[in-house]
Amino acid sequence: MSTGPADTGRPQGRRVAVLAGRGEFPLRVAGAAAAQGASVYVAALSGAADPADYSAYDAKEYRLGQLGRFLDEIKRRKIDEIVMVGALPRPSFGSLAPELSTLKYLPHFARAFQGGDDHLLRGVVSFFEGQGLRVVGPADIAPDLVAPSGALGRHKPSAVAREAIATGFNLLATLSPFDMGQAAIIADHRVVAVEAAEGTDAMIERVAGLVQAGRLKPGKGDGVLVKAPKLGQDLRVDMPAIGPETVARVAAAGLAGIAVKAGSVLIGDRDRLATFADAAGLFIEGVA
Amino acid sequence: MSTGPADTGRPQGRRVAVLAGRGEFPLRVAGAAAAQGASVYVAALSGAADPADYSAYDAKEYRLGQLGRFLDEIKRRKIDEIVMVGALPRPSFGSLAPELSTLKYLPHFARAFQGGDDHLLRGVVSFFEGQGLRVVGPADIAPDLVAPSGALGRHKPSAVAREAIATGFNLLATLSPFDMGQAAIIADHRVVAVEAAEGTDAMIERVAGLVQAGRLKPGKGDGVLVKAPKLGQDLRVDMPAIGPETVARVAAAGLAGIAVKAGSVLIGDRDRLATFADAAGLFIEGVA
Repeated sequence: MSTGPADTGRPQGRRVAVLAGRGEFPLRVAGAAAAQGASVYVAALSGAADPADYSAYDAKEYRLGQLGRFLDEIKRRKIDEIVMVGALPRPSFGSLAPELSTLKYLPHFARAFQGGDDHLLRGVVSFFEGQGLRVVGPADIAPDLVAPSGALGRHKPSAVAREAIATGFNLLATLSPFDMGQAAIIADHRVVAVEAAEGTDAMIERVAGLVQAGRLKPGKGDGVLVKAPKLGQDLRVDMPAIGPETVARVAAAGLAGIAVKAGSVLIGDRDRLATFADAAGLFIEGVA
Repeated sequence: MSTGPADTGRPQGRRVAVLAGRGEFPLRVAGAAAAQGASVYVAALSGAADPADYSAYDAKEYRLGQLGRFLDEIKRRKIDEIVMVGALPRPSFGSLAPELSTLKYLPHFARAFQGGDDHLLRGVVSFFEGQGLRVVGPADIAPDLVAPSGALGRHKPSAVAREAIATGFNLLATLSPFDMGQAAIIADHRVVAVEAAEGTDAMIERVAGLVQAGRLKPGKGDGVLVKAPKLGQDLRVDMPAIGPETVARVAAAGLAGIAVKAGSVLIGDRDRLATFADAAGLFIEGVA
């Protein structure tokens, strides 16, 4: 699990590779690792992370098809710990464009691509573990990036919103075995949207559209985005995340707030997110 | 249940009120009732059904807010059987605009509006039953409008599609307690869309958009729309339906076919729908 405290008891000379996708989380995780005295090597994934953002570290850009080259490099550097963090659009197997050094690993991934995101990520984790690497989560390295329990800002859920939150978490737990969305929207005493392949942002915008068209009329204090990992989801490599842009979308959809599973959803800088939520009049509730 | 054969054993002088929403189903049900010798009175719901389409019957247009007037009329006509059929956008309580004759019934409906569609429909059924009316389903009157078991047209689901169908029905059963969508799309070995407030058509179009954007790549023979009632859903007043336009949307989304629960989904004219599916290269499978 990735929700424990940072492991400060590790020996000096700790070497960490950060496989960096999109967004600010990889930078924060790299910073936290370095602050803990680790030697940090950043692999900026092409099209998602810019190596220039990581100029404070030893950083290099890699395509997914350059996996073999990346493995050779971290073995040369005697790195034994890897953290994957940041958004990465689900690639297709066909788009990997493997280099010669990567071809031998393809059979492992061909199967991993035959299923949901969870299945794919399990394949990625088992691959790195099979290479003798320890896979750690962003929250293991930077626990303060994760949603705490309770209200994050000034606003708190109404009684109606608390009911919606309970329904929402119940729904997400029920959907867990299906390896699909990690979010839903409950408003007007019913489930109005469930996330699958479209992603959380598109789901929120869909609800905004229904509200604008008058097909949904959430009352004041009603309407909640719930977001939580699947039961058994590997939080080391697949922790849900919300940020200021989530707050903006939820506010635009006319909803009252956001509920996340405490300790299991990345939120970035807590104070900054609380400020955004306060300004938008939304609650952000971490549910234990 | 509404899947039994038409009750031809009823006494002569049977009087049926057809509460008609949008589409062809109300007309077909009215026709079937008349063919069985019933006296048919059609209430064409404003904005959904056109009384002119029902000129072969005794027909009158009603707004939802004219419920009291409608009840007075069917009591005057000694009608004791009512069938509600055809699409009707979920109204808001505020849009009912009740006439004086309807005001006394409002308290019953105020509560029914506080919840999902299922809850609302239960409230409508219990209301009519409380008025001494027998509520029958379109399938009770016209059983040939309902999906049979097996392949409807020439095309049959592939092995991959059969797996997707099993996943999809399993998902819909799991979602049953949440009183929400009755459809989902499974493709590429995963759940890619779940219907909630947006409706089946919007869900199919969302998947079409993901396919066009290259975010989903269903293989040949892969990609299935599954549609089934919720467990315990009252098929007398809430039977899911598909039609030629569903076939067109599913084909445009690049999916391989449609699976419906046999005996529990309205399909209209079987031969016509089979012809559409054959032309589009899709299967339509009724799953027992």
